[in-house]
Amino acid sequence: MKKSAVKVAIVGASGFSGEELVRLLLRHPDAELSAVTSRQLAGQTLAQAFSKFGQFAAARQLRFSEPNAELLAKQAEVVFLALPHGVAAEFAVPLVQLGCQVIDLSADFRLKSPAAYKEFYGHDHPAPDLLAKSVYGLPEVYRSAIKSASLIASPGCYPTSILLPVLPLLRANLIKETGMIADSLSGVSGAGKKVEADYLFVECNESVRPYGIPKHRHLSEIEQELSLASGQPVVIQFSPHLIPVNRGILTTLYFAPHKHFATTGEMNALGEQIISCYGSAYGKEPFIRVLEGKALPDTKNVFGTNMIEIAWRLDQRTGRLIVMSALDNIVKGASGQAVQSFNILCGFDERAGLI
Amino acid sequence: MKKSAVKVAIVGASGFSGEELVRLLLRHPDAELSAVTSRQLAGQTLAQAFSKFGQFAAARQLRFSEPNAELLAKQAEVVFLALPHGVAAEFAVPLVQLGCQVIDLSADFRLKSPAAYKEFYGHDHPAPDLLAKSVYGLPEVYRSAIKSASLIASPGCYPTSILLPVLPLLRANLIKETGMIADSLSGVSGAGKKVEADYLFVECNESVRPYGIPKHRHLSEIEQELSLASGQPVVIQFSPHLIPVNRGILTTLYFAPHKHFATTGEMNALGEQIISCYGSAYGKEPFIRVLEGKALPDTKNVFGTNMIEIAWRLDQRTGRLIVMSALDNIVKGASGQAVQSFNILCGFDERAGLI
Amino acid sequence: MKKSAVKVAIVGASGFSGEELVRLLLRHPDAELSAVTSRQLAGQTLAQAFSKFGQFAAARQLRFSEPNAELLAKQAEVVFLALPHGVAAEFAVPLVQLGCQVIDLSADFRLKSPAAYKEFYGHDHPAPDLLAKSVYGLPEVYRSAIKSASLIASPGCYPTSILLPVLPLLRANLIKETGMIADSLSGVSGAGKKVEADYLFVECNESVRPYGIPKHRHLSEIEQELSLASGQPVVIQFSPHLIPVNRGILTTLYFAPHKHFATTGEMNALGEQIISCYGSAYGKEPFIRVLEGKALPDTKNVFGTNMIEIAWRLDQRTGRLIVMSALDNIVKGASGQAVQSFNILCGFDERAGLI
Amino acid sequence: MKKSAVKVAIVGASGFSGEELVRLLLRHPDAELSAVTSRQLAGQTLAQAFSKFGQFAAARQLRFSEPNAELLAKQAEVVFLALPHGVAAEFAVPLVQLGCQVIDLSADFRLKSPAAYKEFYGHDHPAPDLLAKSVYGLPEVYRSAIKSASLIASPGCYPTSILLPVLPLLRANLIKETGMIADSLSGVSGAGKKVEADYLFVECNESVRPYGIPKHRHLSEIEQELSLASGQPVVIQFSPHLIPVNRGILTTLYFAPHKHFATTGEMNALGEQIISCYGSAYGKEPFIRVLEGKALPDTKNVFGTNMIEIAWRLDQRTGRLIVMSALDNIVKGASGQAVQSFNILCGFDERAGLI
Repeated sequence: MKKSAVKVAIVGASGFSGEELVRLLLRHPDAELSAVTSRQLAGQTLAQAFSKFGQFAAARQLRFSEPNAELLAKQAEVVFLALPHGVAAEFAVPLVQLGCQVIDLSADFRLKSPAAYKEFYGHDHPAPDLLAKSVYGLPEVYRSAIKSASLIASPGCYPTSILLPVLPLLRANLIKETGMIADSLSGVSGAGKKVEADYLFVECNESVRPYGIPKHRHLSEIEQELSLASGQPVVIQFSPHLIPVNRGILTTLYFAPHKHFATTGEMNALGEQIISCYGSAYGKEPFIRVLEGKALPDTKNVFGTNMIEIAWRLDQRTGRLIVMSALDNIVKGASGQAVQSFNILCGFDERAGLI
Repeated sequence: MKKSAVKVAIVGASGFSGEELVRLLLRHPDAELSAVTSRQLAGQTLAQAFSKFGQFAAARQLRFSEPNAELLAKQAEVVFLALPHGVAAEFAVPLVQLGCQVIDLSADFRLKSPAAYKEFYGHDHPAPDLLAKSVYGLPEVYRSAIKSASLIASPGCYPTSILLPVLPLLRANLIKETGMIADSLSGVSGAGKKVEADYLFVECNESVRPYGIPKHRHLSEIEQELSLASGQPVVIQFSPHLIPVNRGILTTLYFAPHKHFATTGEMNALGEQIISCYGSAYGKEPFIRVLEGKALPDTKNVFGTNMIEIAWRLDQRTGRLIVMSALDNIVKGASGQAVQSFNILCGFDERAGLI
Repeated sequence: MKKSAVKVAIVGASGFSGEELVRLLLRHPDAELSAVTSRQLAGQTLAQAFSKFGQFAAARQLRFSEPNAELLAKQAEVVFLALPHGVAAEFAVPLVQLGCQVIDLSADFRLKSPAAYKEFYGHDHPAPDLLAKSVYGLPEVYRSAIKSASLIASPGCYPTSILLPVLPLLRANLIKETGMIADSLSGVSGAGKKVEADYLFVECNESVRPYGIPKHRHLSEIEQELSLASGQPVVIQFSPHLIPVNRGILTTLYFAPHKHFATTGEMNALGEQIISCYGSAYGKEPFIRVLEGKALPDTKNVFGTNMIEIAWRLDQRTGRLIVMSALDNIVKGASGQAVQSFNILCGFDERAGLI
Repeated sequence: MKKSAVKVAIVGASGFSGEELVRLLLRHPDAELSAVTSRQLAGQTLAQAFSKFGQFAAARQLRFSEPNAELLAKQAEVVFLALPHGVAAEFAVPLVQLGCQVIDLSADFRLKSPAAYKEFYGHDHPAPDLLAKSVYGLPEVYRSAIKSASLIASPGCYPTSILLPVLPLLRANLIKETGMIADSLSGVSGAGKKVEADYLFVECNESVRPYGIPKHRHLSEIEQELSLASGQPVVIQFSPHLIPVNRGILTTLYFAPHKHFATTGEMNALGEQIISCYGSAYGKEPFIRVLEGKALPDTKNVFGTNMIEIAWRLDQRTGRLIVMSALDNIVKGASGQAVQSFNILCGFDERAGLI
């Protein structure tokens, strides 16, 4: 057993992001996985439920239990919630009261405004008081707030793929906050482990399709963060598509720079500003890779990692800035990002267990 | 043998679109495949080179020959060119002179302007005189010109997926001709049968990536046709992406309607205009399906067919019109479209051999 | 409407093989699709339920109805049953009584022995009298019986991929009837449109796995037909595997030839006998392709067609004969084969609607 | 930099197994990657050539060099060769002479018999003296020899998937050494990064095909090891197939047990012997998982890991024992296995860098 490791629990460890949390935390040098819950797998060991974890002694011993907040509060210092939207709040409220630090991978505590929550999720927020307390767990933006958070609302995969490329440009006032478009392509695991006809192999393989256009739920947290960065209400166009890969999000963003660049010289000057903007924002970030030269993002380059790849192009013909990003929706878009927040929260090396 | 069938030849029948032309023309009730050429397959029968054609008696007899314009002109009335860009022109010139009707699937004769050709393809056009003679083979737009064409320049897969959804809106003056964006996703066969590392299975599977951003060659023909429809020079943003399917293009288009729609009533009124616009443009088209209700395009619904699926959404939040299309890049995006033009040229039912 | 076409109905037209029957019969020159049933799609037109059929006028008019044997008997002369095992019998019994010719794609009437049925399906056969009447719809073997059948039990995909390569060898007494092994790989559509976690995209993509080993249900019909051909009870080893393709079965078969071939000369002599055996059995079959030279079967060569590809190799090192086959499990393994039987039943060209 | 880490070099680090060696060794706690060579990538840093390694400081500094044995011998204590067959020997000979310990992933030194090498590889072995010195790097079998080896011939992916399941059964004399069959399915990376038409995405996706039947090169090392275990010459049937996944081998093996099991009681008794055989052979092996209960191997359960999954079934109907295995062809089938040998060679925890 690891010396002085932090005891962690995962509530809802049978879905894709729960399973990935298990994978990451079993390997984490400073975490001890002390409880995993799943109603459907209760009683089985981790190794029985997922043969691939059989090589870890801990996975051969630890059994899934029914979720129980009081018990969890005794078993773990930090609790990860990998539950469906709406269900997470039921556990977050008592766990925070009982003194646990909670990292919630659902959308339940990402919005600051109960009204926005109601607009996008269709019902009143079950614990509006906690909304004020929660920290949006995007480490590159809220690192210092995460350090002392009792409740971290870890961002979704689409928002991460959009916010990380946009926020520095918006803060540096390089692009207009109007007219932004995000066209995103997501692998099928992004839908979670839902047993629905839409996600059957035969329905997804050799298929590409848009969905949720034009008003996807994730817009609420995207626009909240864009508005905070911009200082004024921002509306963005967001178009998700489903593509036949297991993992990966590729987002293509269209922006209007404030500066008009009619000549190649003007374009190059603006290019220097963009390089400098990303350099000062992300030059020391361990999980952001801004590509140089002719390279463009590719989801296979981030598969299984907590990295996000970003590249950009200025188009002299249209006057637009195009920014592209690629990440693994289950790692940087979910469980890896949550572990990154965990590392910050506990004062560990931010890369612990993630490299 | 079919009575009074038109004799046709395929030059370059070993690539993906050549192979698909073989598939379509072997089944065509009014065409007789009288010659197929391929330098690498010369001497083999069609059935030897492609075992899947072995069920057709014609494929067990017809042998690939070396391409030879004079001989082809004797063997066939209509010649399909399924050759790489640049090579097609070498055959088109003598074949047209010798009195053949030529349907060229390459980009060699799609542009009206030799200057635009040079800008996008990097060298002077080899036969600028023929550019004036050629007809852009988009049947839904140039049907009457196709009837009497001697040289048909059949459009590419990306242009078809963009032009068919846009042109009616532009002609009806429903959208602004500025600020248009086309974000396209293409299956790997779109790259042709190139034996390059980028197109290996392991490099494409579990990968999604943009490429050719921001200035892809196909922009030249797209903007030519948009400008003709609009009556003024049009510039469009076009972002192609490679996705791991064999066949299919999914394009998402972003437009600014001329009319502002602040209220639901205004949005619905504009929606009626769009319905009416597409209805009058495409209501009787055999290969265009404008989706109703909640349905959105999906490449699997057009796989192996000559159909294009189109759907649209108005977004009251952003004021934009979003139009999505799906087609099979090898059929409606290449060989099927060429056969559709062939049917028009010969006075056959436009759906012959395509349904 | 087609002149003097035979009226056909499809019961259970919402599954994969039902949908493929629709595709084939809409194109069939001598069939008129007069009824399609589906409890879940009742009321919708074919074109509404499957946008891809929208290009057929018949599909825009014909609506799914609730299945009703009496009504179906008035609407159609030939009824295809594309129903789950067990359910098919409920419709076959009254339809045959009412004078329809029934082509059943399920396993309900494939076994001659009620005892074997009970052993493999776990319950008594619901209509043992009809078992005696039914014809096993493998056209290459039972063509003459199919001509006058009132109930055709169309074989499954695995049995077809195994029986067609084996039967001629067994009848010609070239191989021993003991020790046979069939190792089969099936695309995911072979499992039907079951909404189960095992068939989700993320569970199947980048996965290969055996299942149902060692006693799969299809063994019952395989061994019945092998025993009939051999004149004595035959037991075969059968190992199915699931692979990440939509369609296709690839079977590798291992046999012990009666003749020992120690020398190359003996091997070549036996090879001649095999060539001759397949030649006389299948030389004129429209849907069987015995490969020559170095070619080996590949599921992509039969995708979407009613063909089966067969190749064989003698191994001088082991003394074995290895035979490989490839077919499309939804066409030659299900709906195409059923249409082939339909053509025989109605006296049409056997290839009508299938080429 | 890691304290007292062993300096390692990778020759031929641009192929799939070379790239995976980089991935594993960058993370290895006790190895320092001191040189990587590649003619085509010479001059670039690891991070430039493979953006995914950019998160490692070492990868941002270490540059590919031209391969040079003398230089390598100064830079590294242990050298991994990830080169094509035939080329590896050119480097192994001088490196061993210069005192390096060499772990060769090619087939060059796997065979003990120069005659067998010539039979299967078509030319004389370039360094027959070294054949005698080399150790077949299957850790579960040759662990003690690996400890003091100067040249380790790391086994191929197919042989590993076959030998690990078979050897204990053969040694325990539970199965006959005649009549064995191995039917294997391999992901496309098994072919290496060859830029050939056969491995293009469009040729592999939606395709399944046998190849190299009946006499594949890997038979030579498989039969060598089976013969050593059995004490007499063993011939096995081996049928490889290509399936559309990036990584993974699934092998299904057919054996004749020595004991006849006519009754369920006899079958269960034999089952106990098999359990006991695998238990004593592999109960403490860190990378072998013998499945219990109803579970069968699935390549997705070993993806990216050094594990092999094994399951078995006795078939009372046929009297056969069927054993199935799954592994990742690039990890346990290549680079992971080589690192496992490296750990043994250096006296590290055998799981270092592999879990």
